[in-house]
Amino acid sequence: MATVNSDLARVRAQATFDPLLLTHFIYDGPEKTKRKRFLQNLALKDFKEQKFRRSAELSREEQYEEALRKCTFTVRRINELGLKDPTELYLFREVLFPSEPSPFGLHESMFIPTIDKQGTDEQRAKWLPVAKRFGIIGTYAQTELGHGTFLRGLETTATYDPRAKEFIINSPTVTSAKFWPGGLGKTSNFVVLMAKLTSNGRDCGMQPFLVQIRDLETHQPLPGVSVGDIGQKFGYGAMDNGFLKFNNIRIPRENMLMRYSQVLEDGTFVSPKNDRLLYGSMTLIRSQIVGGCGRSLAKAVTIAVRYSAVRRQSEISAGAGEVQVIDFQTQQHRLFTLVASAYALIVAGQVSTQAYLSVTKQIESGDFDNLPVLHALSSAIKAFSSWEMMYGIEQCRLACGGHGYILASGLPKIYTNEVPACTYEGENVVLCLQTARFLIKSYNAAEKGEQLPSLARFLQAPKGEKSRLTENLELDQLIAAYEHRAARQVQEANARLQSHLSRGVGAAEAWNRSSQSLVEAVVAFSHAFIVRAFIEKVTSARLDPSLSAVLVQLCQLYALQGIASNSGQFLKGGYLSDQQLLVVENKLYELLAALRPNAVALVDAFDFPDQVLDSDLGRYDGNVYEALMEYATRSKLNKTQVHEGFQKYQKPFVDFLKSQAATQSKL
Amino acid sequence: MATVNSDLARVRAQATFDPLLLTHFIYDGPEKTKRKRFLQNLALKDFKEQKFRRSAELSREEQYEEALRKCTFTVRRINELGLKDPTELYLFREVLFPSEPSPFGLHESMFIPTIDKQGTDEQRAKWLPVAKRFGIIGTYAQTELGHGTFLRGLETTATYDPRAKEFIINSPTVTSAKFWPGGLGKTSNFVVLMAKLTSNGRDCGMQPFLVQIRDLETHQPLPGVSVGDIGQKFGYGAMDNGFLKFNNIRIPRENMLMRYSQVLEDGTFVSPKNDRLLYGSMTLIRSQIVGGCGRSLAKAVTIAVRYSAVRRQSEISAGAGEVQVIDFQTQQHRLFTLVASAYALIVAGQVSTQAYLSVTKQIESGDFDNLPVLHALSSAIKAFSSWEMMYGIEQCRLACGGHGYILASGLPKIYTNEVPACTYEGENVVLCLQTARFLIKSYNAAEKGEQLPSLARFLQAPKGEKSRLTENLELDQLIAAYEHRAARQVQEANARLQSHLSRGVGAAEAWNRSSQSLVEAVVAFSHAFIVRAFIEKVTSARLDPSLSAVLVQLCQLYALQGIASNSGQFLKGGYLSDQQLLVVENKLYELLAALRPNAVALVDAFDFPDQVLDSDLGRYDGNVYEALMEYATRSKLNKTQVHEGFQKYQKPFVDFLKSQAATQSKL
Repeated sequence: MATVNSDLARVRAQATFDPLLLTHFIYDGPEKTKRKRFLQNLALKDFKEQKFRRSAELSREEQYEEALRKCTFTVRRINELGLKDPTELYLFREVLFPSEPSPFGLHESMFIPTIDKQGTDEQRAKWLPVAKRFGIIGTYAQTELGHGTFLRGLETTATYDPRAKEFIINSPTVTSAKFWPGGLGKTSNFVVLMAKLTSNGRDCGMQPFLVQIRDLETHQPLPGVSVGDIGQKFGYGAMDNGFLKFNNIRIPRENMLMRYSQVLEDGTFVSPKNDRLLYGSMTLIRSQIVGGCGRSLAKAVTIAVRYSAVRRQSEISAGAGEVQVIDFQTQQHRLFTLVASAYALIVAGQVSTQAYLSVTKQIESGDFDNLPVLHALSSAIKAFSSWEMMYGIEQCRLACGGHGYILASGLPKIYTNEVPACTYEGENVVLCLQTARFLIKSYNAAEKGEQLPSLARFLQAPKGEKSRLTENLELDQLIAAYEHRAARQVQEANARLQSHLSRGVGAAEAWNRSSQSLVEAVVAFSHAFIVRAFIEKVTSARLDPSLSAVLVQLCQLYALQGIASNSGQFLKGGYLSDQQLLVVENKLYELLAALRPNAVALVDAFDFPDQVLDSDLGRYDGNVYEALMEYATRSKLNKTQVHEGFQKYQKPFVDFLKSQAATQSKL
Repeated sequence: MATVNSDLARVRAQATFDPLLLTHFIYDGPEKTKRKRFLQNLALKDFKEQKFRRSAELSREEQYEEALRKCTFTVRRINELGLKDPTELYLFREVLFPSEPSPFGLHESMFIPTIDKQGTDEQRAKWLPVAKRFGIIGTYAQTELGHGTFLRGLETTATYDPRAKEFIINSPTVTSAKFWPGGLGKTSNFVVLMAKLTSNGRDCGMQPFLVQIRDLETHQPLPGVSVGDIGQKFGYGAMDNGFLKFNNIRIPRENMLMRYSQVLEDGTFVSPKNDRLLYGSMTLIRSQIVGGCGRSLAKAVTIAVRYSAVRRQSEISAGAGEVQVIDFQTQQHRLFTLVASAYALIVAGQVSTQAYLSVTKQIESGDFDNLPVLHALSSAIKAFSSWEMMYGIEQCRLACGGHGYILASGLPKIYTNEVPACTYEGENVVLCLQTARFLIKSYNAAEKGEQLPSLARFLQAPKGEKSRLTENLELDQLIAAYEHRAARQVQEANARLQSHLSRGVGAAEAWNRSSQSLVEAVVAFSHAFIVRAFIEKVTSARLDPSLSAVLVQLCQLYALQGIASNSGQFLKGGYLSDQQLLVVENKLYELLAALRPNAVALVDAFDFPDQVLDSDLGRYDGNVYEALMEYATRSKLNKTQVHEGFQKYQKPFVDFLKSQAATQSKL
């Protein structure tokens, strides 16, 4: 298996640009690319030396145990290497946990950051050092069996007892059990608990508490604590998502995280002054999810494109022999549009993270003006990109035919472990409706002649214009088309809302009755942002002309595909003519053919090591069939030639039917 | 848990029609409904008495063993009961194998039928009785590691040796290994093997052979046979999909299935007279898949609708308390459109199966005229319905938020075990392109003034008309809109094809360059068929007016949703005006609200026992939270309070970091 599959090698060699230049574009220059490769190679070496096992061969329970082995190893290794930069940590871990969660994930991403942001200086000094050296291991326990999105609906109670200076933590109902937090089931001995605080008989809303749930030495659950794993899931086999119930346990007053709200010793509740800062970290996380979705889609499409160059199936011209499936236009349409999407989402993640950083600076200087628009934007594109990723990964799996269905393809794992992005950190529909509030407010402000923040300014665009898009596929005209469509969809959703209001429907119900069209308006808004971000990033970067030409084609393909598949929203009002739509479709097909020689180079440029793809179909060397057969032979059912079920069930059954037939034939 | 959740009960009670009447509509009358319930209750009792285990709690290996136990039990039970009718068998098995495959599945659906249809009378007499009493257990081995769709590409060889009067069966390459057949890995001792026949040095094409692969007593693989399970997959844990390689093994001449092609003793190859009959069974299977996709979607949407009545989350009016999520328009949009799809696909399956039966009668009397159109239609709607199902089940899962992700929801199992319908029995894109050939041929025949078969007649419809659809949502206008759109899409695809041809592109390549638009035309064609089938079935049935009113609403919703989400194809050429599209959207939202009281009754009417749904979220009694918590506590990771990984990995790791910190603080 040392040589590269010749069909794959030939397509690879046809590229009109140097994929390394594109890798530099993605990873922010040659230096960072070099560093990325250095770190990922270190992690690769570790993975091999430690003989970590492939999750496609493990049971769910084995996956958890292996993940525990990996995450304890990884933390020590990261400490040794002194890695601190978030991007470097991400890239290092990506190799050891390829599309897989870590039981320590929530400790690092939520438990420590919540203490850091919501603890007082005293609390931070007490808990952060011990948490950082895993002296306590925690997770973030908010979601309950009966409650998710709606924070105020949580039922877990924290009642202050001023005599003992303690909180009493309780789970009063079945539905109040904490359910889902990652790392909760078996790994954590602490949680940041969101609970409904009552002090001096007063409802003080949801507050965060540090609660110990297991003994630090024996790891046994503490008295009054019932905790465990929630069982098998669609994916996330490596993660011990857990449940947690409290039977009136007591924690000291000092364990409420009191940077914002406080309970004084006598039980007096002190409200926070400003909680807008909380939005900031959600915004950052959502921007990161956007890029992460792009990266997950990039993995899936790397697998599918490489396999499509290796796989030969059916003839185009009868008798001319089976062709590489990448030569079928339908396959190109399925995959190349997803290559474009992956790039678009990765770029959008970068652009929105940049926007977050610049708005953060404004906030630090006391300027909160851009926070709402940034928050609205990050919510919307998180929803948009996770939906695109979800759809796209499954298309990649289907594009691999039957072989996409075996775990060795890597695609089921990518799908099942990445698709929760549609639900976590804000359920997508809920997020869209948050952004819709912002858009409707902005739209009405614009109607009144107010100036909008730059990201929403296109809502002021004139409504009656016609597109000037020609077969040259002018990039500014593509942006204009998307912004026109978004403005129009917002306008229509607003009209629907106003029409309900004008017929006397109450505000809340009118909003509900308009909500589907509001969601569609937010999708159009997100799409417009991403098209603009992608085009602006590509046209503003200093790129070799050979690379620039291909990236412009990708921008065009991304934009055309979105127009073709939502054509009604562009045709409405005659903005785009039938003739222009025909041009869009024809050019779309031409772009597929034009990108064909660059398809493998475009996915190679994502620079995923084979270990990260974890796919027998997506191997860089294209030796897919040998790898698949090797995977098959290692199936646990092949431990014996004859499965024990044969003696237990099949043979007695066959013998019974045989003797029955013999008896009947005698009768 | 004896009482029904009050929120669910309340919605159930709001229905404006009797769901039992709708159940009769689905299951073809009160008598058959009674029989259906009788049989499913028997199977339910069996399932409980035998203490069969739930797959959501089993490892993949346990799933296979449990499935073997179940299928041996089920065959004996079916024999006892004397069940023979395919529908009755389907309904009985549905309870014992809820959305799960059986290791005997291919024996019954492919191995026996292939011997039956392709064996000579002598072969049938010899093999069928023994196969039917499982004296031999087989599967159908066609797909190879490197070859799927393209039959002529298969590499397994069968070389006739006239001296020994035997065939030599061989797997000459890595890619020639049979790969994927269900039941092959561990269960089967025989296969019907598709292999490339050579006789007297002549290539005689692909032929079917009966090949023994395991000893009938010991079940050990025979010499020269390498066989095993292929490992873990996205779903299908209960199925031992297998690989199979031959090293020049010999089988007697009599083991070639010779009803059509024959090899005489001296090696003379005799070609078949007419192989069109083969299309017939594929057509039936594909029609059945259509109904099966409807049924799978129906299961998913039953779960999601019931759970949406139980689940309360977020407020519509601030302070008014959390509402049932079914009250959110976005949730209604997601789910009610899928309820409509499920009904539409179930009906389409019935209609196309009926069409198959009547065409079969024509064929038996020597009339093959309608076979091509039926074949084209069944291919197209198989593709269309499996795509709709795939999309729809995942929407149902997302509609259940986080809880949709746990295996106890039942939704991941339904998805992963049903989605292979997009790939098996003809990969969807390949099927669409087969149908496209028929459509283009028909279109050009119509252009020449030839009369088309009735199912394709709308391709002759005038192209320039305008829709007369009003806010009364006339059913004939909805059908007309879909047929106009389909005709237009076929016309456009044909124009694209002709344009390539007229510019000198070769026929094969011109076809390829038009293939994406051809696929889209086939989708439009399928959609039109389903809309018409649904509407005609509903309007022609004798129904209680209370039921008829709701079913007409479902037809309208199905049609409107398709227009709204493909609006560009209806707006093109001004067929539908912007104003009409606005009406479509407004009416769509009105229908969602109108269907809200009937939502639970509409899914209850599918009449799935809880056991078939196999879902803690979709329970008829709505006691979802108790069930989920019970599932969680049974997680294998909860066998001990402290997982063994704690002592093995976590504690040493924590101790190490602690001692390291102690050392550092001393320095």
